[in-house]
Amino acid sequence: MAIKTTMFRHLCIKDLSGLLRSSGLWHGCSSSFMSLQPQRSLHTKPKTGVLMLNMGGPRTTDEVHDFLLRLFQDRDIIQLPVQKYLGAWIAKRRTPSIVQKYSEIGGGSPIFKWTDMQGRLLCERLDAECPASAPHKHYVAFRYANPLTEDTLEAMENDGVEHCIAFSQYPQYSCSTTGSSMNAIQKFYANKKQESSMKWSVIDRWCTNPYLVKCFADNIKKELDLFPEKRRKEVFILFSAHSLPLRQVEKGDPYPSEVGATVQLVMKELNFCNPYRLVWQSKVGPLPWLSPDTEHSIKNLVRRGKSNILLVPIAFTSDHIETLHELDIEYARDVGNEVGAECIRRCAAPNDHPLFIDALVDEVSRHIKSGHRCSPQFLVNCPMCSNPSCYNSKQWFKYSTRKFD
Amino acid sequence: MAIKTTMFRHLCIKDLSGLLRSSGLWHGCSSSFMSLQPQRSLHTKPKTGVLMLNMGGPRTTDEVHDFLLRLFQDRDIIQLPVQKYLGAWIAKRRTPSIVQKYSEIGGGSPIFKWTDMQGRLLCERLDAECPASAPHKHYVAFRYANPLTEDTLEAMENDGVEHCIAFSQYPQYSCSTTGSSMNAIQKFYANKKQESSMKWSVIDRWCTNPYLVKCFADNIKKELDLFPEKRRKEVFILFSAHSLPLRQVEKGDPYPSEVGATVQLVMKELNFCNPYRLVWQSKVGPLPWLSPDTEHSIKNLVRRGKSNILLVPIAFTSDHIETLHELDIEYARDVGNEVGAECIRRCAAPNDHPLFIDALVDEVSRHIKSGHRCSPQFLVNCPMCSNPSCYNSKQWFKYSTRKFD
Repeated sequence: MAIKTTMFRHLCIKDLSGLLRSSGLWHGCSSSFMSLQPQRSLHTKPKTGVLMLNMGGPRTTDEVHDFLLRLFQDRDIIQLPVQKYLGAWIAKRRTPSIVQKYSEIGGGSPIFKWTDMQGRLLCERLDAECPASAPHKHYVAFRYANPLTEDTLEAMENDGVEHCIAFSQYPQYSCSTTGSSMNAIQKFYANKKQESSMKWSVIDRWCTNPYLVKCFADNIKKELDLFPEKRRKEVFILFSAHSLPLRQVEKGDPYPSEVGATVQLVMKELNFCNPYRLVWQSKVGPLPWLSPDTEHSIKNLVRRGKSNILLVPIAFTSDHIETLHELDIEYARDVGNEVGAECIRRCAAPNDHPLFIDALVDEVSRHIKSGHRCSPQFLVNCPMCSNPSCYNSKQWFKYSTRKFD
Repeated sequence: MAIKTTMFRHLCIKDLSGLLRSSGLWHGCSSSFMSLQPQRSLHTKPKTGVLMLNMGGPRTTDEVHDFLLRLFQDRDIIQLPVQKYLGAWIAKRRTPSIVQKYSEIGGGSPIFKWTDMQGRLLCERLDAECPASAPHKHYVAFRYANPLTEDTLEAMENDGVEHCIAFSQYPQYSCSTTGSSMNAIQKFYANKKQESSMKWSVIDRWCTNPYLVKCFADNIKKELDLFPEKRRKEVFILFSAHSLPLRQVEKGDPYPSEVGATVQLVMKELNFCNPYRLVWQSKVGPLPWLSPDTEHSIKNLVRRGKSNILLVPIAFTSDHIETLHELDIEYARDVGNEVGAECIRRCAAPNDHPLFIDALVDEVSRHIKSGHRCSPQFLVNCPMCSNPSCYNSKQWFKYSTRKFD
């Protein structure tokens, strides 16, 4: 069998010895590098760490305040005057109503449960499919909830991970989601005043992944089957994604285009079986955001006789409050009752769907085998970017994804 | 009916003068219809007519006024108070500046030449690939220039075409482009007070067609090769599409999503070789349209050191004034000089690229072989639609694409 050294393809011996010294990896087995077999053992240091980046959510209602505090103090997602104080004030004010919402969906967000499971299933498959980079270990890194990105990075450095794949769990890139997580990575190392000992590479977007598309299509088909047969063909499919302030879109945030791409491919996979539209949920505040919005669209469709609607959370890979509360309770139940809809259902999020795990495996294994470290797209700022964190972050990734080459 | 003024709702006469000064709206072709039509002289009755729908453009500068008059009087694209008179006034005021622009690109729009050639090449291939529906004949039907849609429909009925495939030449659907052409078909039969004798079917969008994607990717690769080698990897690709008023997007017009889908697939085909963004051109008037806009993006990129830019007209299938004047002269040359760009180039429109003809053949032959008449998507109104023409048109197509089943 050809010996695979994908991740070291461009490493010279000097680089390699430095890497081995600094990481303490291989516990003296560098000479047996070529004979390393794939294995997953808690006692084996992970050669490849898959950093699963997401926003996270409070696991219990006790964590709601701190979650909101971190969110409203993040200038990558919201820009407020005297943000430290105003963000804290908003977080405190909003806590009771958000606690109430989490109480209504079982007391907390399941996003950690799903992300952890997805990561575990992914790495088991990677060990089999990519022996040269095994063992693989997943690390969950949330932006506003535990495990926080900075704590996870500390753990990865301590574990002696050799190659860190920063893998955004948002298939469609937005500066406010993937961008914010990437900026948090740079800030961690800037605060630490120490270089990472890991080799870095990045999967920043995967909105056209064929298995992701098939997963959404399969969930839609299953949910369509639950409508009364005589209504099934007229069900209006509303793909709903988290909205974004137009101010950010105007700077060049590629998110709406990439969500549009996923929608179109999913409908193509379904042979355009039903009418559909992409709409946007979760707008806050008075400024203009992406539209049409989900609630308004549901109301108008029902008033016009399109009374059977399927909601599809197209930009979320796990269930959390926007699916379990906003789509299920606020829209499907409450708005549906208000306007007298015949049937509004919500399609499952990818969660642990086998095709979704296939998507993760496909994306990461192709990334590893290609030897690519980072797309040119990720390393440039938006045309109208004015966020200094983005500039610092791009510089850091430019350096870190070329180091060890 | 209340007078709606979508894109000019808040325009006063003073604003209109600004509108008149700016622009480059749409494209063209024309002249005496009968001399332009066919194309392929057929002594046999065409069994299948492929109706190539597009906006068209003035073929000579003499035709500019009538082209603008039809455009500004079309309520599917612009809603003005006392539209008959105000539209006529705007058309007259704008004629000299638009004549000037056409003079600078050789005296007229080449859109008829390209559409006619595309149709001819398409039907030659269809005759070979789909013998059961042969002979096929293409019919060009423009919205604002000769051959006008109504004249072409008259000709098709007179020719005794059995099956008419309404084939939008806009790969991405917008209510203001494909929608307007479809509404014109319904209006023709409503005015005629006579049913069509043809069997109707519709190809309303094809933004993810694999050959269309390959065609764009091939044109981009060829154009990238014309940049100096040492700059090639850093060329910033700006996909530029005609913008749309946000008021229309808010109603549920799927255009921005579908353009985003094409962009993402083209970059995937190119293995994400360069940084890129989707930007929007040709905005007129003071109201908000899709952004970021092309000109602003070019200026900002160059100011930030991204001085090599490739413009890609991603929502046009032929050259016309938006590519030949707006992109080539106003942006690549004039804006480029103004901000001191190193190199701004524009990628070819699909025109007669063999892969583009493959896309047309693929789309129409699959349509014919599938026996599908019309997608459910085309037959529903946007969630917030308030255009009575759209309601009439959907009803007409619902009836006409089921007739003869």
